[in-house]
Amino acid sequence: MKDEVALLATVTLLGVLLQAYFALQVIAARRAFGVSPPLTSGPPEFQRVFRAQVNCSEYFPLFLAALWVAGIFFHQGAAALCGLVYLFARLRYFQGYARSAPLRLAPLYASARALWLLVALAALGLLLHFAPAPLSAALLRRLRALLPATA
Amino acid sequence: MKDEVALLATVTLLGVLLQAYFALQVIAARRAFGVSPPLTSGPPEFQRVFRAQVNCSEYFPLFLAALWVAGIFFHQGAAALCGLVYLFARLRYFQGYARSAPLRLAPLYASARALWLLVALAALGLLLHFAPAPLSAALLRRLRALLPATA
Amino acid sequence: MKDEVALLATVTLLGVLLQAYFALQVIAARRAFGVSPPLTSGPPEFQRVFRAQVNCSEYFPLFLAALWVAGIFFHQGAAALCGLVYLFARLRYFQGYARSAPLRLAPLYASARALWLLVALAALGLLLHFAPAPLSAALLRRLRALLPATA
Repeated sequence: MKDEVALLATVTLLGVLLQAYFALQVIAARRAFGVSPPLTSGPPEFQRVFRAQVNCSEYFPLFLAALWVAGIFFHQGAAALCGLVYLFARLRYFQGYARSAPLRLAPLYASARALWLLVALAALGLLLHFAPAPLSAALLRRLRALLPATA
Repeated sequence: MKDEVALLATVTLLGVLLQAYFALQVIAARRAFGVSPPLTSGPPEFQRVFRAQVNCSEYFPLFLAALWVAGIFFHQGAAALCGLVYLFARLRYFQGYARSAPLRLAPLYASARALWLLVALAALGLLLHFAPAPLSAALLRRLRALLPATA
Repeated sequence: MKDEVALLATVTLLGVLLQAYFALQVIAARRAFGVSPPLTSGPPEFQRVFRAQVNCSEYFPLFLAALWVAGIFFHQGAAALCGLVYLFARLRYFQGYARSAPLRLAPLYASARALWLLVALAALGLLLHFAPAPLSAALLRRLRALLPATA
């Protein structure tokens, strides 16, 4: 069982470390701009770091859920790779947002694409699981014909 | 192993799609009411959509955790059904809250009931797992006598 | 499979109950201080309870992710124990923060230590999993020599 989820667990742990890094950046921004808890409003520089962290936190459970369903029901390696792309996009989103609001957009769209791809792989994996065996085999053949290198 | 969690994974994916829908609604409300990130305050209409999404996001990890523990330790089908009821109640909560604050209450209570039921099923499943075999068998007989149709 | 995760599932369910308790405390604080949804700002007493709950919610997915990876790849009992320590620290954090902002700090640091320990156990577990067998065995011997009572 561990072999089937070890890559997913690794990406999950990297995601936890990334979220911890974001949380530490918010603590640093609180100190730099003198915004003591429980306050959450301050100068725009603080506000952007704070919102970047909140946004990443809100999406983290969605990301983990899609990662694991895609990894278990479709393909572990493909899901883990999408997961790495997602996390890297989130890092660039956080760094961009900290500098200016418009700079958050390009990496935000990149992270959304990676997340939608994980959702699509998860849906496809569940479809293959629930479809009758001949239909499922036919679908897999089609997919392999489309993607000879990855399937 | 996949058969034991396929329904849970399906409900999880539906939940991810629902949360993604809520996030897109917040983006639409930001545009409609001119509330640009990183701002989060605006007219009450925006505020309600924003808070509805935040509240659903906060509960999503609790929901997933209860769903999976109930599904693995009690009964997958029963947990998945409760999960669907929860997600449908959350959709009505979001739509109600977007219209007015009082309209959020009835579906909020419905979602809370579904979540507490999942928590109860999860607790019962863990109790059956840890209880000595004769006690566990006796408990299951009692449950089957109470719920002849579902057990 | 259930035996390998039953303790993790139990700690997870306790965590869900704790988060539900925090959410109920926010509802009580909303009533006590007259802060009706969708508002989230009010007197400092309300603000502290509100922020305590938000902070615990943000960390809950990180906690669950680290708990399960540590429990599956390192040692279920050790991970579950760390998880209990984390949840107890979060309860004291919530209660301390509700009384005053400085009282949140000591239990916040305790919860951070428990979480970092879970992250370290998870990383160690994954390292042992991916390392070549002889290296992995040598690492385990070193660990057992360090911790004769727990390994």
